[in-house]
Amino acid sequence: MHLAELSRRSGVSVASIKFYLREGLIPPGVPVSARKSEYDELHVRRLRLVRAMLTVGGMSVGQARDVLAVADDPAFTRHERLGIAQYMLPPRVTVPEPEDEARAAWDAMRAQIRAELRALGWRFHDEAPGLDVLTRSVLTLQELGYDAPVDQFRRYAEAMRPIAEAEYSTIEKYEVLEEAIEATVAYTVLIEPILLALRRLAHEDVSARLYYGAGSGSDPGSDPSPDPG
Amino acid sequence: MHLAELSRRSGVSVASIKFYLREGLIPPGVPVSARKSEYDELHVRRLRLVRAMLTVGGMSVGQARDVLAVADDPAFTRHERLGIAQYMLPPRVTVPEPEDEARAAWDAMRAQIRAELRALGWRFHDEAPGLDVLTRSVLTLQELGYDAPVDQFRRYAEAMRPIAEAEYSTIEKYEVLEEAIEATVAYTVLIEPILLALRRLAHEDVSARLYYGAGSGSDPGSDPSPDPG
Repeated sequence: MHLAELSRRSGVSVASIKFYLREGLIPPGVPVSARKSEYDELHVRRLRLVRAMLTVGGMSVGQARDVLAVADDPAFTRHERLGIAQYMLPPRVTVPEPEDEARAAWDAMRAQIRAELRALGWRFHDEAPGLDVLTRSVLTLQELGYDAPVDQFRRYAEAMRPIAEAEYSTIEKYEVLEEAIEATVAYTVLIEPILLALRRLAHEDVSARLYYGAGSGSDPGSDPSPDPG
Repeated sequence: MHLAELSRRSGVSVASIKFYLREGLIPPGVPVSARKSEYDELHVRRLRLVRAMLTVGGMSVGQARDVLAVADDPAFTRHERLGIAQYMLPPRVTVPEPEDEARAAWDAMRAQIRAELRALGWRFHDEAPGLDVLTRSVLTLQELGYDAPVDQFRRYAEAMRPIAEAEYSTIEKYEVLEEAIEATVAYTVLIEPILLALRRLAHEDVSARLYYGAGSGSDPGSDPSPDPG
């Protein structure tokens, strides 16, 4: 197919496709004349993945290029290819510099969190960005004077693990690597707000039961919360 | 105490305190001369809450003022006062206008999600912003061609509920309303990244077991993930 059809098929504008070609995010087509190239299904699939990484995943062009370089390198396993995609997703927190006076507290907390999760038998890379997110969050809670729930990680971790297993079995159904990476990006990013919204609704339910007793929940008229508008 | 000591005690600059006074976020002190007012512990506590709402909670000045108006109104119950604070926390998603053609699909999905959660016995207000977040997330997944996990909400909801119960019992320990609201803001916002980071680490663990077998997880040298740098 030519560029115009590739654009139509993928839903990506011709200008964006040309930009992705220049940036090396999609492979060049096969030249059929001085000004035309031929594209195929692989390009459609790769374009879909690039869009997922940039828009849904919030990756930079450079990060997307890194993910694709690993995806295309046969030296990496499928576990590694999907892992690189997940590592590149925001958020990324700033780690204190080694000479920073906050660095010692950072390193100690990070080691404590890692040990807590390893004690659960979890396997993950020492450089997993999730460890930095956990460290930053716990230190911030402590700075504000709240209990740091490092020993409560077990509860949170146990709640997350069956979820991760179910999600991963869904991702495993995508045999084509590009589709599996795209699904990794989409599920990781788009299901996050679902989890957080359910946690907030659960807070509201717990509070409602505490203050108004256990109701059926089926009658909006008996609903205790005020209109926040 | 005078303004300078209030600033020292609360860690909030004099300029910021004057701004909060002008905006009505903290009550005025008692005038002791033409140019001086006297402040007390209530001001220290209120300043801490205002800072938590604006910086940790990411609320606007107007939203913080709304939360405080409810907090100070004896017509509201404690459930309602804490609920208003939670409702004002980001994210807030944009709901399609009633005349928008996307509105029918939006309303149908929102009603389906609400019914799913009500079937679990959950009690929450019909206008809970979490319902809008859920609706937006599921519709976006569908638009990208992924299964919308509305019937999988049960799994996510069941994972979140014991977490919410434990968190709520912590918040309940704060008897002073300002401190309970501050804890609601801090715990809701600062524990969210902890949950998400643990979910990503759980994904990595599930993938590692699938591709490399169940290891002890205690030996970083056996760690399968590549360095993403």
